[in-house]
Amino acid sequence: MQISHIEHIGIAVKSLADAIPYYENILGIKCYATEVVADQKVKTAFFMVGQTKIELLEPTSDDSTIANFIEKRGEGIHHVAFCVDDAAAALNEVGEKGVRLIDKAPRPGAEGLMIGFLHPKSTGGVLTELCEDPNK
Amino acid sequence: MQISHIEHIGIAVKSLADAIPYYENILGIKCYATEVVADQKVKTAFFMVGQTKIELLEPTSDDSTIANFIEKRGEGIHHVAFCVDDAAAALNEVGEKGVRLIDKAPRPGAEGLMIGFLHPKSTGGVLTELCEDPNK
Repeated sequence: MQISHIEHIGIAVKSLADAIPYYENILGIKCYATEVVADQKVKTAFFMVGQTKIELLEPTSDDSTIANFIEKRGEGIHHVAFCVDDAAAALNEVGEKGVRLIDKAPRPGAEGLMIGFLHPKSTGGVLTELCEDPNK
Repeated sequence: MQISHIEHIGIAVKSLADAIPYYENILGIKCYATEVVADQKVKTAFFMVGQTKIELLEPTSDDSTIANFIEKRGEGIHHVAFCVDDAAAALNEVGEKGVRLIDKAPRPGAEGLMIGFLHPKSTGGVLTELCEDPNK
């Protein structure tokens, strides 16, 4: 597996409306898009910082994994996503090396990416996503 | 303040010796340096992923903030660091905008950077570092 860069950092927030002004007015980075990802029960807001996106994640339902995360740990960094050429091959490779997979095969994520998650029990507590941009 | 990129992501680990093989053998990214940062009571290991470093942080003392973090929350992502041109000016600017600062002025960090932390109470739960590379 070849990781080219950190595609994004996912940050759990209670409210995009409350969080976006911090990023825009304090850190000076602009939200360029928002998107509802129904499958993950989140509404996201995206900011570009160099090569990497900040992806704010607001739960759209009380049974969203993001709602559970906020309830247990509070708002904060939720996951890190690495960009790979071939997400299916990368998931296979790490699975064969003994990593516990949340997703055995890629599924559609935000912004048209194909994504899969590795379980934090296998990654030193870091919820880790592998992403492929099928349009590149 | 102008943020150019994410300088690094800090990840708290119990043991560098246990964590480094995951990054090298599973994710395929190579540790290029280790460093003891006595001031922060940590031993760090660095990996380059595109523009951004992964910085693994092992506590060197039971009263290290990293040891406290691991005891409370387990291993995982500890902080995110943004690269700025002028860390002193950036800390002043965000402080004037009402952000609670852990460091009112930059202090030396790993790899010769000048660094300062913003308090997670002011940043939506994300422990946030601003870094300047004085050699650039």
